[in-house]
Amino acid sequence: MENALVDSAILDKVKGWRAYVEAKLGFRNHWYPILQSSDVAEGKTTTATLCGERLIFTRIDGAVHCLRDRCLHRGVRFSHKPECHTKGSLTCWYHGYTYRWSDGKLTDVIAAPNTRIVDGVRGVRTFAAQEAQGLVFVFMGDRTGDIPPLAHDVPPNFLDADMHVMSKLRIVKSNWRHGVENGFDATHIYIHRESRLIQENNLLLPLGFAPSAEKPYRVIDGDQGPVGVVEEYGPHVIPAFEGKIEGQTVLRVPSDMTGKNIVPSTISMWLPCALKVDPWPDPRTTQFEWYVPIDETNHLYVQTLGSRVGSDEDKRAFEREFNKRWSFYAFDEFNGPDIWAREAAEEGYASDHHWVDEALFEADENIIAFRKLISKRNRGVQKPNHLRE
Amino acid sequence: MENALVDSAILDKVKGWRAYVEAKLGFRNHWYPILQSSDVAEGKTTTATLCGERLIFTRIDGAVHCLRDRCLHRGVRFSHKPECHTKGSLTCWYHGYTYRWSDGKLTDVIAAPNTRIVDGVRGVRTFAAQEAQGLVFVFMGDRTGDIPPLAHDVPPNFLDADMHVMSKLRIVKSNWRHGVENGFDATHIYIHRESRLIQENNLLLPLGFAPSAEKPYRVIDGDQGPVGVVEEYGPHVIPAFEGKIEGQTVLRVPSDMTGKNIVPSTISMWLPCALKVDPWPDPRTTQFEWYVPIDETNHLYVQTLGSRVGSDEDKRAFEREFNKRWSFYAFDEFNGPDIWAREAAEEGYASDHHWVDEALFEADENIIAFRKLISKRNRGVQKPNHLRE
Amino acid sequence: MENALVDSAILDKVKGWRAYVEAKLGFRNHWYPILQSSDVAEGKTTTATLCGERLIFTRIDGAVHCLRDRCLHRGVRFSHKPECHTKGSLTCWYHGYTYRWSDGKLTDVIAAPNTRIVDGVRGVRTFAAQEAQGLVFVFMGDRTGDIPPLAHDVPPNFLDADMHVMSKLRIVKSNWRHGVENGFDATHIYIHRESRLIQENNLLLPLGFAPSAEKPYRVIDGDQGPVGVVEEYGPHVIPAFEGKIEGQTVLRVPSDMTGKNIVPSTISMWLPCALKVDPWPDPRTTQFEWYVPIDETNHLYVQTLGSRVGSDEDKRAFEREFNKRWSFYAFDEFNGPDIWAREAAEEGYASDHHWVDEALFEADENIIAFRKLISKRNRGVQKPNHLRE
Repeated sequence: MENALVDSAILDKVKGWRAYVEAKLGFRNHWYPILQSSDVAEGKTTTATLCGERLIFTRIDGAVHCLRDRCLHRGVRFSHKPECHTKGSLTCWYHGYTYRWSDGKLTDVIAAPNTRIVDGVRGVRTFAAQEAQGLVFVFMGDRTGDIPPLAHDVPPNFLDADMHVMSKLRIVKSNWRHGVENGFDATHIYIHRESRLIQENNLLLPLGFAPSAEKPYRVIDGDQGPVGVVEEYGPHVIPAFEGKIEGQTVLRVPSDMTGKNIVPSTISMWLPCALKVDPWPDPRTTQFEWYVPIDETNHLYVQTLGSRVGSDEDKRAFEREFNKRWSFYAFDEFNGPDIWAREAAEEGYASDHHWVDEALFEADENIIAFRKLISKRNRGVQKPNHLRE
Repeated sequence: MENALVDSAILDKVKGWRAYVEAKLGFRNHWYPILQSSDVAEGKTTTATLCGERLIFTRIDGAVHCLRDRCLHRGVRFSHKPECHTKGSLTCWYHGYTYRWSDGKLTDVIAAPNTRIVDGVRGVRTFAAQEAQGLVFVFMGDRTGDIPPLAHDVPPNFLDADMHVMSKLRIVKSNWRHGVENGFDATHIYIHRESRLIQENNLLLPLGFAPSAEKPYRVIDGDQGPVGVVEEYGPHVIPAFEGKIEGQTVLRVPSDMTGKNIVPSTISMWLPCALKVDPWPDPRTTQFEWYVPIDETNHLYVQTLGSRVGSDEDKRAFEREFNKRWSFYAFDEFNGPDIWAREAAEEGYASDHHWVDEALFEADENIIAFRKLISKRNRGVQKPNHLRE
Repeated sequence: MENALVDSAILDKVKGWRAYVEAKLGFRNHWYPILQSSDVAEGKTTTATLCGERLIFTRIDGAVHCLRDRCLHRGVRFSHKPECHTKGSLTCWYHGYTYRWSDGKLTDVIAAPNTRIVDGVRGVRTFAAQEAQGLVFVFMGDRTGDIPPLAHDVPPNFLDADMHVMSKLRIVKSNWRHGVENGFDATHIYIHRESRLIQENNLLLPLGFAPSAEKPYRVIDGDQGPVGVVEEYGPHVIPAFEGKIEGQTVLRVPSDMTGKNIVPSTISMWLPCALKVDPWPDPRTTQFEWYVPIDETNHLYVQTLGSRVGSDEDKRAFEREFNKRWSFYAFDEFNGPDIWAREAAEEGYASDHHWVDEALFEADENIIAFRKLISKRNRGVQKPNHLRE
């Protein structure tokens, strides 16, 4: 985990987004989706890792609880052999140190009745958990201070009452930032040029974009809602359907691969690590996704697709459509090369020097805007010492 | 091996047992059991690693000899292709550098007759070896100074003439100190509460112990024998047969799992790393065991069981009983969770910070006493540079 | 790759060959063989790693070209999905950054027509490549300065017009220097004493050599050709056919294993890392081999065998003999233990301390002479920061 620290000689060379380069383990005091609600069953435990923290979860009377998965005594993981002898408690398998799920307090040591240690220690770290749209969100945060509402850390419309959301989670072997930058990257559509989704859904997808004279993005930086960068495709970029090398056309999107569905019109990136592509992959759906920090070299890729519904019948219809088409064509087939590209970028940035050496270009300006915004508006850089506090 | 060094910023925070926390590779100038006598055949070689040192062994005219397994010339291991062309010599396979087993002297280089290097080098490191109770003990020590008797580094009674000892060796993936602390830990019986050995041998085993008013251990700290900490169960602790959480009984040792054999009565820990449990697992037997440092993250778990014998027939009877019952029920079945717990603790202490962060309680006082005692009475901390001298 | 740096406290203790100990990744501004010509097909790409540099190769109109396998933009490897849309260009699969093979210039970004970045960056690193004797040589060098001729970096006679060369390449898991020192080591023939090649080719091969009074090598240190150290066996060493330990003969080359073919007569080592054994393994052939730095812990073992030919028929005859006899008996069977010895030495020198601790002897004087020579005449130590420039 010491590898989570970035050499200050490198940080000193970064202009404008030092905190972002430093945040290998992500930013703290933010909400992150980490499990599907269905992963946490009443009275059972499950685990996940977030920003370097190993977490253990349970559900009690319907509510999800989350503790650091590490006994104060010998540092062992509860989850090696989880013991829940009462509804509200978690007991360590080694000596019976027993903690309350609700506040982490050490109440008993089963192997030592009447021990005084229960009065002397601070308790195990708890983390706030909240469910929304079928996902469990965790607030990776400090013990003190107010917790901002979940609505400030998700893209606009994700929590709308009539938005019905389906999701899929998988681990990708790259730092979370390569997920963020791949997702928000307007010209990486180059790697999707042969995707079956284009024909399958009659999409209009260019090879790339020529820069336009206009500034290609808007920064949303208020205090009363999500903070992010919005890129609207229509006015800002000129789609390119021909690829040229030294004047010679080498690639051309064939007319029979150019459909009538002009998607997306807007792509936006939101603190701490959420993308909204709207509409996508269909004029009637919106893709929201997260690149959640697991540790230095892995992130959780949370793919979700939302659709406006007016009735339970609408919900069922969308669920059927999701399972039949989008789960494969959008999440697996279309996003497959994205996963592969992020893992390749992990290699590119394996030495932190590449944060200084990288050769960005005009089309990366929205990414740079997000780097600057998150460096200014994040609520703290997660560092290895936080994992001990 | 540089990972064998503990950050001095951490050591400075340790109160009372700095040397112990520093001794990732164990303590030097002590005797350790490392092989079974039967592992070392006349005229053959075998290897083992002790306190980070790779060793090669042979037996000559009945006596065990031990050298560092590393040729002075190119640093290669003799054991890759051991060559013993005469009874008393070991030849390196690469250029024929030939050393005497008895004192490590370089006598010849086969590929270079008459070379003058034989007069100029110090020889390869030798280590004193001695056999007792079917085990080979090695003195991991300096070249100079007197070697203390083996009897000072083993638990009392282990070497008694009428003690017959059976043993089993295995590698455990944890630092040696997690073996020491697991073995001497009075309340870790919590993990053994469902062991089949309890019913098999009609044992009385509680879930844990409530602290008593008395100091729970005695320190044996003389100059004429083993040095250690002794905990006598009878007077010092109150066995607990019920486990409670916030006043509610959650676990109870069923009366049909509570047998008449009250074992053990005494548990003691001896320098450098030996445990004595007496009697155990039967009123007629004593378990002696060692947690021998291999390297930073592995120890050799030396399990032995001793029984007083008056005749060769007694010996054979005990051997039969050991092979039929104790080898499985005591060493494998009962101690199995101990191995698992030490490997879990290795993870807990993977960052040396946990030596500062750990939340010990009253029942760990005997462990703390041993930490202090060994920090005072050890004969030197083994460090990476010792492996080069 | 940070492990490629040697601790200066160790370097300061090295007498006479500091640069050599420092050169874990090899020396730069030298020519190295890295592929067989047949590995690089017209219009296709292939990869190799040299001195820590990941390289990508192609062949255009017969000529081999070589670029650093790393896009300037995101640091990803071109070779994950190489795209060559025109004869002279290499395009990155991620955003279409397109470079000229001839000079590394960024000419276009396919996903962003008209981008100005093509005017602002330096281009991707190119490396000079040249073919000779069926091998591709790369000049691992700086951007500026004259490139010395290949003839200065290969052993004498290797490039002779009538020399016909057959080769075999394999990766060995040791630093390149253990290859150099194993190859040029006069007494390591001890490990070959039971080779089937001896009987197969009726060779006279001793167990070792007694040092003679004469200085056993000559240094070739001019400005107009290869630089190296030459050891002539005839006058300088006394072959030893008996091995003794404390006066007792323990090994003897049996008379039926002593053939009439007295080979080799001369062994020589040439900058940067090439060995010439002449004649070998037959009075009519010469073995040239290279131990090419791949990274800190691997080298490319380039084995070649040359024979003087006067006609195409001679060539075919030698190729048949090579494939039938020498490929197996010389390269695989005889050199097999060399590979194994270098990997064992890698372990011996795993800590850089062994460069200070090693116990060399008289027979290593030619190796020491080469260490000194290359420390003086190398054209630069390859260091991790070179991989970023």
